[in-house]
Amino acid sequence: MIDIESVLKQYKEGTVSLKEAEAFLRSTTTADLGFATIDLDRENRCGFPEVVYCAGKTVDQSVQILHLLMSQYDNIIGTRASKEIYDKLVKDFPDVRYNEDAHMVYQHKGIEIVNGDRVIAVITAGTSDIPIAEEAALTAEIMGNSVQRIYDVGVAGLHRLLFRREEICKANVCIVVAGMEGALASVVGGLVSKPVIAVPTSVGYGANFHGLSALLAMLNSCASGIAVVNIDNGFGAGRMAHSINSMR
Amino acid sequence: MIDIESVLKQYKEGTVSLKEAEAFLRSTTTADLGFATIDLDRENRCGFPEVVYCAGKTVDQSVQILHLLMSQYDNIIGTRASKEIYDKLVKDFPDVRYNEDAHMVYQHKGIEIVNGDRVIAVITAGTSDIPIAEEAALTAEIMGNSVQRIYDVGVAGLHRLLFRREEICKANVCIVVAGMEGALASVVGGLVSKPVIAVPTSVGYGANFHGLSALLAMLNSCASGIAVVNIDNGFGAGRMAHSINSMR
Amino acid sequence: MIDIESVLKQYKEGTVSLKEAEAFLRSTTTADLGFATIDLDRENRCGFPEVVYCAGKTVDQSVQILHLLMSQYDNIIGTRASKEIYDKLVKDFPDVRYNEDAHMVYQHKGIEIVNGDRVIAVITAGTSDIPIAEEAALTAEIMGNSVQRIYDVGVAGLHRLLFRREEICKANVCIVVAGMEGALASVVGGLVSKPVIAVPTSVGYGANFHGLSALLAMLNSCASGIAVVNIDNGFGAGRMAHSINSMR
Amino acid sequence: MIDIESVLKQYKEGTVSLKEAEAFLRSTTTADLGFATIDLDRENRCGFPEVVYCAGKTVDQSVQILHLLMSQYDNIIGTRASKEIYDKLVKDFPDVRYNEDAHMVYQHKGIEIVNGDRVIAVITAGTSDIPIAEEAALTAEIMGNSVQRIYDVGVAGLHRLLFRREEICKANVCIVVAGMEGALASVVGGLVSKPVIAVPTSVGYGANFHGLSALLAMLNSCASGIAVVNIDNGFGAGRMAHSINSMR
Amino acid sequence: MIDIESVLKQYKEGTVSLKEAEAFLRSTTTADLGFATIDLDRENRCGFPEVVYCAGKTVDQSVQILHLLMSQYDNIIGTRASKEIYDKLVKDFPDVRYNEDAHMVYQHKGIEIVNGDRVIAVITAGTSDIPIAEEAALTAEIMGNSVQRIYDVGVAGLHRLLFRREEICKANVCIVVAGMEGALASVVGGLVSKPVIAVPTSVGYGANFHGLSALLAMLNSCASGIAVVNIDNGFGAGRMAHSINSMR
Amino acid sequence: MIDIESVLKQYKEGTVSLKEAEAFLRSTTTADLGFATIDLDRENRCGFPEVVYCAGKTVDQSVQILHLLMSQYDNIIGTRASKEIYDKLVKDFPDVRYNEDAHMVYQHKGIEIVNGDRVIAVITAGTSDIPIAEEAALTAEIMGNSVQRIYDVGVAGLHRLLFRREEICKANVCIVVAGMEGALASVVGGLVSKPVIAVPTSVGYGANFHGLSALLAMLNSCASGIAVVNIDNGFGAGRMAHSINSMR
Amino acid sequence: MIDIESVLKQYKEGTVSLKEAEAFLRSTTTADLGFATIDLDRENRCGFPEVVYCAGKTVDQSVQILHLLMSQYDNIIGTRASKEIYDKLVKDFPDVRYNEDAHMVYQHKGIEIVNGDRVIAVITAGTSDIPIAEEAALTAEIMGNSVQRIYDVGVAGLHRLLFRREEICKANVCIVVAGMEGALASVVGGLVSKPVIAVPTSVGYGANFHGLSALLAMLNSCASGIAVVNIDNGFGAGRMAHSINSMR
Amino acid sequence: MIDIESVLKQYKEGTVSLKEAEAFLRSTTTADLGFATIDLDRENRCGFPEVVYCAGKTVDQSVQILHLLMSQYDNIIGTRASKEIYDKLVKDFPDVRYNEDAHMVYQHKGIEIVNGDRVIAVITAGTSDIPIAEEAALTAEIMGNSVQRIYDVGVAGLHRLLFRREEICKANVCIVVAGMEGALASVVGGLVSKPVIAVPTSVGYGANFHGLSALLAMLNSCASGIAVVNIDNGFGAGRMAHSINSMR
Repeated sequence: MIDIESVLKQYKEGTVSLKEAEAFLRSTTTADLGFATIDLDRENRCGFPEVVYCAGKTVDQSVQILHLLMSQYDNIIGTRASKEIYDKLVKDFPDVRYNEDAHMVYQHKGIEIVNGDRVIAVITAGTSDIPIAEEAALTAEIMGNSVQRIYDVGVAGLHRLLFRREEICKANVCIVVAGMEGALASVVGGLVSKPVIAVPTSVGYGANFHGLSALLAMLNSCASGIAVVNIDNGFGAGRMAHSINSMR
Repeated sequence: MIDIESVLKQYKEGTVSLKEAEAFLRSTTTADLGFATIDLDRENRCGFPEVVYCAGKTVDQSVQILHLLMSQYDNIIGTRASKEIYDKLVKDFPDVRYNEDAHMVYQHKGIEIVNGDRVIAVITAGTSDIPIAEEAALTAEIMGNSVQRIYDVGVAGLHRLLFRREEICKANVCIVVAGMEGALASVVGGLVSKPVIAVPTSVGYGANFHGLSALLAMLNSCASGIAVVNIDNGFGAGRMAHSINSMR
Repeated sequence: MIDIESVLKQYKEGTVSLKEAEAFLRSTTTADLGFATIDLDRENRCGFPEVVYCAGKTVDQSVQILHLLMSQYDNIIGTRASKEIYDKLVKDFPDVRYNEDAHMVYQHKGIEIVNGDRVIAVITAGTSDIPIAEEAALTAEIMGNSVQRIYDVGVAGLHRLLFRREEICKANVCIVVAGMEGALASVVGGLVSKPVIAVPTSVGYGANFHGLSALLAMLNSCASGIAVVNIDNGFGAGRMAHSINSMR
Repeated sequence: MIDIESVLKQYKEGTVSLKEAEAFLRSTTTADLGFATIDLDRENRCGFPEVVYCAGKTVDQSVQILHLLMSQYDNIIGTRASKEIYDKLVKDFPDVRYNEDAHMVYQHKGIEIVNGDRVIAVITAGTSDIPIAEEAALTAEIMGNSVQRIYDVGVAGLHRLLFRREEICKANVCIVVAGMEGALASVVGGLVSKPVIAVPTSVGYGANFHGLSALLAMLNSCASGIAVVNIDNGFGAGRMAHSINSMR
Repeated sequence: MIDIESVLKQYKEGTVSLKEAEAFLRSTTTADLGFATIDLDRENRCGFPEVVYCAGKTVDQSVQILHLLMSQYDNIIGTRASKEIYDKLVKDFPDVRYNEDAHMVYQHKGIEIVNGDRVIAVITAGTSDIPIAEEAALTAEIMGNSVQRIYDVGVAGLHRLLFRREEICKANVCIVVAGMEGALASVVGGLVSKPVIAVPTSVGYGANFHGLSALLAMLNSCASGIAVVNIDNGFGAGRMAHSINSMR
Repeated sequence: MIDIESVLKQYKEGTVSLKEAEAFLRSTTTADLGFATIDLDRENRCGFPEVVYCAGKTVDQSVQILHLLMSQYDNIIGTRASKEIYDKLVKDFPDVRYNEDAHMVYQHKGIEIVNGDRVIAVITAGTSDIPIAEEAALTAEIMGNSVQRIYDVGVAGLHRLLFRREEICKANVCIVVAGMEGALASVVGGLVSKPVIAVPTSVGYGANFHGLSALLAMLNSCASGIAVVNIDNGFGAGRMAHSINSMR
Repeated sequence: MIDIESVLKQYKEGTVSLKEAEAFLRSTTTADLGFATIDLDRENRCGFPEVVYCAGKTVDQSVQILHLLMSQYDNIIGTRASKEIYDKLVKDFPDVRYNEDAHMVYQHKGIEIVNGDRVIAVITAGTSDIPIAEEAALTAEIMGNSVQRIYDVGVAGLHRLLFRREEICKANVCIVVAGMEGALASVVGGLVSKPVIAVPTSVGYGANFHGLSALLAMLNSCASGIAVVNIDNGFGAGRMAHSINSMR
Repeated sequence: MIDIESVLKQYKEGTVSLKEAEAFLRSTTTADLGFATIDLDRENRCGFPEVVYCAGKTVDQSVQILHLLMSQYDNIIGTRASKEIYDKLVKDFPDVRYNEDAHMVYQHKGIEIVNGDRVIAVITAGTSDIPIAEEAALTAEIMGNSVQRIYDVGVAGLHRLLFRREEICKANVCIVVAGMEGALASVVGGLVSKPVIAVPTSVGYGANFHGLSALLAMLNSCASGIAVVNIDNGFGAGRMAHSINSMR
């Protein structure tokens, strides 16, 4: 939401009428496409422009929304995006990229690393968890963070994890991505003092119930300093890690 | 059910025999297609003719049922309908229409707005909720109501909602369509004195469990004056809003 | 929320400073008890003062909140309240009442019936559903509505319901309260043109899973014009019925 | 299991050795195809030969099992069968039939009606429930029962059901097939003194959770004299009705 | 519901007016206690008077309802009843009995066995299932059936069951009462040709989820000729068995 | 089940009649208490006499069953038993013991260790898991095994586990008892080549849903060589470990 | 885990033997009470000593564990603790405190605020959420953080939240504690750029299923920068906030 | 994890530096492919090399991992593998095989039967359970065990099972594979003294909820000496059986 105080002042000074003030506020902070009310105040409030969740939208809707945002901001992300969306955007925005693993379309023009001295470790239990991990890693990178990928170090072979312990302990934030029983989150949580963000994945079958087993396990971790995002929500984890990493 | 009193009277007067009375009642109030027993008394009892739920029926069954109804009534709705059904009906009923977003086939010949001074606001949290919202909006419109569409004003950018507050507060009934965490229903419920009908959608993934998260959230709303329909049941919300809006 | 426009005007005219305006707005619309931030603007926005949900609060907290509200408003409701709360309030507020069936404590001083020509029918499937039905009925009555109680007319003996059909069809809104399989909501929904609010109750055992069976049944009703509130949420149904009934 | 007493006698009389007795018993009561151990004693014990559930078996496995059974018995049923299975069987068994609605392949050579004076009523709430109802009806017919089909008489239009009340009350057993909220089972259960078998179907969407809503509703019916089979288990209902109907 | 035809005739003949006819019908078929609308037509329709489910009713409500019914009928059942209810009833009805195991209060004055040649076998997997089994057995007995109790013959010691095989196969209907994994229903279902009613019980702990494991197992039985009632619903099983057993 | 072959021989030789043979078999292999059919052949078939699950039985029933078994066998176990049961048994059986932690009553007269060279390790994640662990340990000990207890070594402090690694790797079977997220099972499973039996416990709160989180986690373990028993089923784990440990 | 490198060096230098090294490591990093293996290396690894979860432990076990820890560390926390535990500890540790709201026993001797310039806001939707909020707030305070409590500002009265917006936006971390539909987390998430930790509570009834509704809602939040802990896990949220707040 | 003791010794003797020791340990026990950290110490710890779960990995990832493992070990297994993976591997490894039923790719060069005198019985309830049974059987065979297949002997025709009783009782371990109600596990568990591993399958429909019914049933078995693996986890059962069978 725009700063109400400054508007009140201008309005009081008589520079703008009541109606004008309202219209100004509205057009500055939203863009109305009929099927979408884009939040142009998001970066101001939350530190990064609106991220577009493309699943459930038509290709056309996604393209129009991303087009508008990419015109106004350097760094823009569309998640769960098809390559078709990318193909349409790249004609107008040569800087736009598509990552097939993470199903992300993004424009990353202002490529400076904001939180470079603070590494975010993205750790997976298995190879099958990598697509979600990449969604997290890429999100964090586009937002200006350094990412260290540590993949396939699940608890069935604990030494794989312990060999990477130094890297993990040095990281400022750990994102742990695991399906099946999701035990890796607890083990990492017991090794570090930094915040751990756990991402349950739907990897597995049978009684994993599409990620429920890992989700419940992570919520019930016996280690502390762990918080959890939705199943397969790599983006959410990357975003949360960025929020934490941006603290001064 | 037909008015039993009047039948009793005619029968008493001897105009019709017991058997005749029964046969008359049966044929006046139902039409038997073998695979369907169409309710011809529905409009009399409930204020609108039987609405045909096409999912799970063969195309042929849907067409036959709708054909019979469209011959007898001006305004007829088929929900969850394929375009194939429309293609077969339009040959005989030139007024029939198909709405691809809402997956609805309908005949809307008596296009007078019955409850015109009373607007129904159809509000969505996101763009992905629009197909369900359109099912609600179209249902309400065909039944004779004015609809105001307010789309993509979810709580992540609260000012989008607040800018539309006046329109929302003026509406006679609010239909709130939201997936994911469905928080919009509670926020709208806290702003208005008019009844709010909440429609959880299956938009989302992971722990939304196909709409369960929004459904449970809406049922547990801390705001009052809210009631809930089935997940993705845009039609039900539109119908309920019409019932409310028709009060005198 | 208080009317921003009028505040903007006073502030513009210089009657009040920015700080004063804010403080004024805050104190007019909320009361801060530390453990509770009472919403004094609720009646203005939603048509009835804040209703206090006493479960989960200490007796002392409930009493303090209700005390404050009862001092300022004629008609105040506390739900899921123990008799202990009543005993403490009645000393200061002689008009306060306690209804043991409905577990409600309330002050109902302005006892005029606002929507008297419009009856709300409260219908139960069984005798065990009555406590929840009473919560609904009492809520509606305190808010100024006439209530018609029609109890124990479940579908296992359909004629019981049909004998009351005239009363049911005359009602402006129907609240159907049922546990077990909750079929009564669908049957009533098929008989009337007025809106039906369905309240699933936790009455039953085994595979009713504390009301889940009735809840799911009501959400999936084959009849339309039905919307559902939370399991055992008699208050919510009464409140919703009042919202509907208050339309002009 | 074969009659142990007669075997003990023959064996005692010395007609057969211990090994011979065992081998005889085994070969008389089972047929071993490696991937299947066919129960040739089923008709003796349970009154009808083994019914083949084709889902989850390869076409080839289903064909081999049905081939063996059709060679030995007049009346044989395969459920959840593809037409491909039929196409392979019909070459050798000209009497074999395929019912596309019910997904059943069957041989029905001894077409006498065993329980002809006792009608089984198969009642559906809607048109979409017919495929499951046909599975039930056909099963009962092949086993030698008369079936009365009463389709699409759900509770949203109660008079449709009441017009068929006489037929329903005359039936010896009622099979009620309903999806969504499954209320029809309770209403029928309240009208008849004969046993009611309720079949929940997966017809519906959202919070019906693939038939769970109807299943729970039917298990919690407020009417008595009702028992329930698995979701979409038309065969099981037809089989149970046959067991009941066969009593003398 | 009362026989509409005869009423129509009397009314036609002018013996009774329309109002009188309605009042007569109403008072003959229901008794209104305010908190209960007793179904006096139940025996006529369904073959046995209304059975009172006492859980969820106050002791006083249960007593009043049972008092009214016991005055009018010889055989009356109250399920889930406390001994307190019995204590109050026995003063006026010396024939009333209380069974502590089954939590049933009942009057069984016309103690003739109606279906004596047809035995209902009530079989339990374990000793802990006996209270539910007794509810089933007693219900069937009060309704006039002979019951054979076969207790604690679960599948962990299959010979226990096989030793009772002759009795089981001779029974006209089998009620199988089992908790935990409920396997006994399938094994019995594979041994008999008569209908099997399966009653899942909540006996067990952990992943039995209060009877869910047995319920799901019984619904998914690989044996056919089985239908299921609610968890712990001994009464429902006894009632269903009586319906089946009463066939001629 | 008793050895059929030997019975057939005696019967053939004419030593016993058919009726006598049956009666003999029955009385040798079962004891009928009316409310219980005790399996006297269990030890013969399964290697240990019937174990009595006391929950859900009355104290009296438990005592009678245990009394009978303790008279015939040296080593007898009653699980989920109250101290009251012990108090009644100890009068007649001075060797009977009660373990309050494990809620077990048992007679352990033949106290030789059968599988002494093969240690069963019982490992818990936390202190709160000890009651279930003791049920497992005691069961294994009474059946003749050596048990090594390793308690409170959950993954939040991995070094606690690693310090005990040698003992764990030396064990012949590992029982891992853990609530919350149950991660310990996977970590142990990744360290050993011997079979691991995982026991989920209901320790925890919230989204552990009474042990569901640990159960699902253990079923989905990324380590192999792990099998799972019911939530809180210490007895089952001890019994399974004994079966494994008894192999030669 | 203790620093392996330094141990390797001492061992290499011959100062300690292999056995001595192991014993030293073990005794330095754990304390073995038999029923508990206390992690004395936790503070070293994770920044705060082991926190004792008292539920499921006997009073005696909790006291012994806390006694040992309180002897060695200044700041120690026991969660879900009864007052009885406090009563026993306070005799030996005069600085120990008990907070009845939060059910926490703790020793907080080194009362310096470590992260004083960085405020953690603890926000609740309602008064009933306060016990969980206090667990979070107290945990954060004992670990050395400044906490700002903002209670009862749920979305049903949005202005209550907006009046506190400045305080909320200034906070370094927000903990949002809410039951029912948990919508507050999304609304706060849409207003701030700092990380939000959402704590679902079990406050509510019916379809909230002991906190499931709020849990699912929070996991599916449409706002980003939110992560979730277990239902009612105030401690976990406070601990996570401390981890985040401690970053430099 | 490699033997720490021997490394400590070499390092102490000065043969290798600290860095060298670490590097040596790392490279001996893992292979880093970037997307996979292969556990080369698995056979040493757990008795068999890492088994590759191919679902969720790209074909390319699976091939690279299997390629590396097949180069180093004689016996290697890939589960849930497509034929495409086999086609790529067979070019370099002529001994590799593909089993379409079990969806397994494997190299089995050292084809000696390790535990030949100890047979593992793999028993299925139905023909549809065979694919999962084959996964179990093949896993056990590749690991060096003799397997006896006993298929389609479910409890609906108990004599089929009893005819194979001798074979079953002779087996050293029983794997019971069953869908639907999974009763076979309990029946087998009651017949043998050897350990039983139960594998629930997703065979069935409706209320089997993709294997949940069989899973819950097996976890709640009234027979003891049974432990359960994940739904459809044939591999896990075969692996567990091998662990048990390898004991000396």
